[in-house]
Amino acid sequence: MSVADDALRRLLEEAETWEALSDLALEAHQVLVKEEEPPEIPGVTVDTQEQDGVTLSRVFIESEEGARRMGKLPGHYSTLEAPELRSRSVEAEEKVGQVLAQELQRFFQGLGVGSEDEALVVGLGNWNATPDSLGPKVVGRLTITRHLHRMVPPEKRGGMRPVAAIAPGVLGLTGIETSEVIQALVDRLNPKLVICIDALAARESRRLGITIQVADTGIHPGSGVGNRRRGITPQSLGIPVLAVGVPTVVRALTLVEDGLSQMGQPTGRVAERLLAPYLNSMIVTPREVDDLVESLANVVAGGLNVALHPALDMDEVLSYLS
Amino acid sequence: MSVADDALRRLLEEAETWEALSDLALEAHQVLVKEEEPPEIPGVTVDTQEQDGVTLSRVFIESEEGARRMGKLPGHYSTLEAPELRSRSVEAEEKVGQVLAQELQRFFQGLGVGSEDEALVVGLGNWNATPDSLGPKVVGRLTITRHLHRMVPPEKRGGMRPVAAIAPGVLGLTGIETSEVIQALVDRLNPKLVICIDALAARESRRLGITIQVADTGIHPGSGVGNRRRGITPQSLGIPVLAVGVPTVVRALTLVEDGLSQMGQPTGRVAERLLAPYLNSMIVTPREVDDLVESLANVVAGGLNVALHPALDMDEVLSYLS
Amino acid sequence: MSVADDALRRLLEEAETWEALSDLALEAHQVLVKEEEPPEIPGVTVDTQEQDGVTLSRVFIESEEGARRMGKLPGHYSTLEAPELRSRSVEAEEKVGQVLAQELQRFFQGLGVGSEDEALVVGLGNWNATPDSLGPKVVGRLTITRHLHRMVPPEKRGGMRPVAAIAPGVLGLTGIETSEVIQALVDRLNPKLVICIDALAARESRRLGITIQVADTGIHPGSGVGNRRRGITPQSLGIPVLAVGVPTVVRALTLVEDGLSQMGQPTGRVAERLLAPYLNSMIVTPREVDDLVESLANVVAGGLNVALHPALDMDEVLSYLS
Amino acid sequence: MSVADDALRRLLEEAETWEALSDLALEAHQVLVKEEEPPEIPGVTVDTQEQDGVTLSRVFIESEEGARRMGKLPGHYSTLEAPELRSRSVEAEEKVGQVLAQELQRFFQGLGVGSEDEALVVGLGNWNATPDSLGPKVVGRLTITRHLHRMVPPEKRGGMRPVAAIAPGVLGLTGIETSEVIQALVDRLNPKLVICIDALAARESRRLGITIQVADTGIHPGSGVGNRRRGITPQSLGIPVLAVGVPTVVRALTLVEDGLSQMGQPTGRVAERLLAPYLNSMIVTPREVDDLVESLANVVAGGLNVALHPALDMDEVLSYLS
Repeated sequence: MSVADDALRRLLEEAETWEALSDLALEAHQVLVKEEEPPEIPGVTVDTQEQDGVTLSRVFIESEEGARRMGKLPGHYSTLEAPELRSRSVEAEEKVGQVLAQELQRFFQGLGVGSEDEALVVGLGNWNATPDSLGPKVVGRLTITRHLHRMVPPEKRGGMRPVAAIAPGVLGLTGIETSEVIQALVDRLNPKLVICIDALAARESRRLGITIQVADTGIHPGSGVGNRRRGITPQSLGIPVLAVGVPTVVRALTLVEDGLSQMGQPTGRVAERLLAPYLNSMIVTPREVDDLVESLANVVAGGLNVALHPALDMDEVLSYLS
Repeated sequence: MSVADDALRRLLEEAETWEALSDLALEAHQVLVKEEEPPEIPGVTVDTQEQDGVTLSRVFIESEEGARRMGKLPGHYSTLEAPELRSRSVEAEEKVGQVLAQELQRFFQGLGVGSEDEALVVGLGNWNATPDSLGPKVVGRLTITRHLHRMVPPEKRGGMRPVAAIAPGVLGLTGIETSEVIQALVDRLNPKLVICIDALAARESRRLGITIQVADTGIHPGSGVGNRRRGITPQSLGIPVLAVGVPTVVRALTLVEDGLSQMGQPTGRVAERLLAPYLNSMIVTPREVDDLVESLANVVAGGLNVALHPALDMDEVLSYLS
Repeated sequence: MSVADDALRRLLEEAETWEALSDLALEAHQVLVKEEEPPEIPGVTVDTQEQDGVTLSRVFIESEEGARRMGKLPGHYSTLEAPELRSRSVEAEEKVGQVLAQELQRFFQGLGVGSEDEALVVGLGNWNATPDSLGPKVVGRLTITRHLHRMVPPEKRGGMRPVAAIAPGVLGLTGIETSEVIQALVDRLNPKLVICIDALAARESRRLGITIQVADTGIHPGSGVGNRRRGITPQSLGIPVLAVGVPTVVRALTLVEDGLSQMGQPTGRVAERLLAPYLNSMIVTPREVDDLVESLANVVAGGLNVALHPALDMDEVLSYLS
Repeated sequence: MSVADDALRRLLEEAETWEALSDLALEAHQVLVKEEEPPEIPGVTVDTQEQDGVTLSRVFIESEEGARRMGKLPGHYSTLEAPELRSRSVEAEEKVGQVLAQELQRFFQGLGVGSEDEALVVGLGNWNATPDSLGPKVVGRLTITRHLHRMVPPEKRGGMRPVAAIAPGVLGLTGIETSEVIQALVDRLNPKLVICIDALAARESRRLGITIQVADTGIHPGSGVGNRRRGITPQSLGIPVLAVGVPTVVRALTLVEDGLSQMGQPTGRVAERLLAPYLNSMIVTPREVDDLVESLANVVAGGLNVALHPALDMDEVLSYLS
């Protein structure tokens, strides 16, 4: 399915359920399936499997109706859930990083991105706001090769992919929409793939710290912990855009609505009207959100490094440069 | 009124309402007055006044019954509410710092602490957990004079109070209860006053970022954002202990209960049983909690510096040392 | 005088003395004048004045010969020296910030930059390397208005200049030359002025922490604490480029050479050959470099905010946005 | 050999060469041996061996004359030199951490410290000054067990050593001498061993980032990057005190003197008189000192965790606590 950017925007604006839902396609689906009859949503399929203690759910949204009802752009969303990450051990971080790397490579293949195609990784978010700092933290831990690539003799570059990365900051601190910075860099650098890393809001607090979503839809307006207005999408940039999203917060309003719902109360608009004025800017996070963001940044950066440079021997690269 | 430490502990354990209440005496009082009949609580008086745009409420708890019903130790609690702090301007920080300084000096006077009596300031909390890092941040901004005091000739020390400070860390990171570190230092340094700075949990999110509480009760178990088991109290240390507490979070459970209550639902135990398993470790904070903690640390450190060193000319002090 | 970018590059490569000199034009001049006979360098003039305890030296390089001998691009360099900054008091920071603001406005006028012309501020350097983190720190403290500008009715914008800012990171962390990021953003945003903020290396350690240089030459290769290869210059960008540089380190090699020189030994190439292998990556800084960078970032951000928004009433701006 | 604390102090004051030397016993020895005839220093022996790419040098100072000439307290100093640490790879960090753990356990055995004896680890230095922040950073990465120990049934504690840790800050920030804090805690907690972690100054910049010294002498006045006046020694505390020191800086003055010396110039007092006024507060570090301190903190914390808890299964411990 192919839809123009404007059409997508309209689609999402019509999605009444959006604010009440989640940045995670998987959660959006679970809510709908629970609430509606019949549970089947036309054009939406979900496939779940277990791998090494990690639950991997793939949601495919392939119709406009499905997109509207899910409040999500049409595309492919994979969600990893790894309760083991709660231990924050190096072992768990490495294991989940490996599963993430495999899923990323599956996306590369599906999108026709070759093993030496240049990639630009964008760390969205604000390094001064802990729950929103995941993107910049991941960028700081990547193996960056774009500037080394041209210094290595071509016959020695086997499997070396040029990778660049930037953490452009947020609109309130830069005055520039993130999408404008990315568009300007894509125009200049001509990468074959953009990967955006972003902190998300989940619906259920039990997901925080254990969940990673990869989507081939890019980033669309309204998503993410902060608000980044224009989309960073395959439609707007003209190349594949992967979004790696990690829930670090739950919106406070969502939490209260879910509390009401669990207590058997009617959810939704009423609560929102009553509570919104003072809850809108509030977020819910685990007490230890600083440690959690550090650990998740390790997982995502580790997964990206393996997926982007599967065959890289950095020592050998450096030996050509000294 | 004078009660032994153990009796106090029992008092608080009996206080059924504690978990449902707040670290702020003012909020505990407002909840009780709203919920109960007659509104009068014997042995508890509240006095509120306006000063320079800052609302200053003084709660006096002077009976065991009052303490039990409030879930707070008997003593004197002053709460400053300054909505202007939302602007995070230097002007607002300085103004509220001045009001805080005056109130601190009022406590000094009431406790018989003289203008040259040595003070030990303790920054409670964990510098690696943003909402709990207020105490250590304040300590880093204080004017420290204990080590300079002995180097200045006595006739030149007019108005120079020896001030020491420490941020001892939290039990999980040190293996030592904070109260043990303080007790050991008080035994060795013999200060005349201990001032503890701590991040608190409020009941209502609208208070976050604009509220400071000063109490002459010290810190009691269960208080604060993290959990510091043994008390740091006048009873245990044998000298006056002031607690300066600043709400930086709301417990997630409290938020849901309050949401239910605003929707006209029965609050309390039911919600707790249903929701506790996954909400207990969650906190609610403003998105911009990093900035908020920075700004509040400026206010508290500014207020302490003025209150502790009202006449200090630091340039003159340093001229004796070079 | 007008010279093409390539010619400039050649000019600097010919400047044999460069490595032995300094990022500061003022120091380069003092070294030459001390060493050479006659002291006069054709096409180079220096004007020094005192203002409010701040020494303001203006160096004008107006000939190719002057540029070659100074190892500096032709242009106008103003250097503020404020020993008072050693106190790191808010008062000193504000006073020097005011002097900086006036000098910046003098540059704006000289370059024909109007009071409502859009400016893009670039914080060069690496936020993970303390002495090189000045640029990103300044950017984080600026009053950013570009995104607000279009939301304010035109008749209310009197004196409101659109200001955007970015801290693009360093080549080793991004794989992208800083000059490429800036070029891409200038192409897209079309600002009327670029201001680069950078940490510099001085020749004499006594200058660290008290000196700020403003130059209308932009940033040229080899300058700065890290190495940012391509220039960010008026020639390459096609618009005025101001460089605000603040020395935070001395190169270790320079220090040894100066030590030798003060001991009456022949300086220069000999020492370099002997010592370079192990000294090249070493820097000399004050012990308290973390505090020093914080304080200087306050001064530079304060000066920029006043110079860029001389008439801004931020409260009024915000009243149009809520 | 046993010497009273005062005698030791006098010994060091007499050591004329001290300032010109280094915090590292190994360097002090190399300088003396190079400079003096005969190379033999009575009562000082040095033993060097290679292990897994790490050079391990053990210096034993066993006479008062040796102590005076070396400018070091009598005792046992082990120095690890691991050039591989320059790669800052996880593998190198882990390998050197293992060698450090073995050497620490050798010290434990020599001092009669049993495998379940309580240890107090002290992170000296200032977390706000990057090159001096190693101690606090190490403390933040230790496995802390003192508070868990009493909660585990005695028959399950096999191999579980109670470990506590604190980062007390520096005199200028606390007003309390570090030695006073440690003395107060030792009096209260009664540990069987104190381990101090500190950043040191080396003589040669090539040692920075690759060297770790362990000594059984504790910390003596004048040592370390900052200045911590009173000693933290076995003599003053009455229990074994290990000092783990890591050079992160070279004093700028030392660097110039060494430069002079390499150029064949007379070193020493002359240079000091000429250069001291402006060089005394300056330090020399690698550009990338922030990364270097992070990496060394990993090595030291890793080594300590293995040495202190050789048999600890943390998962099993935690299973008794939930």
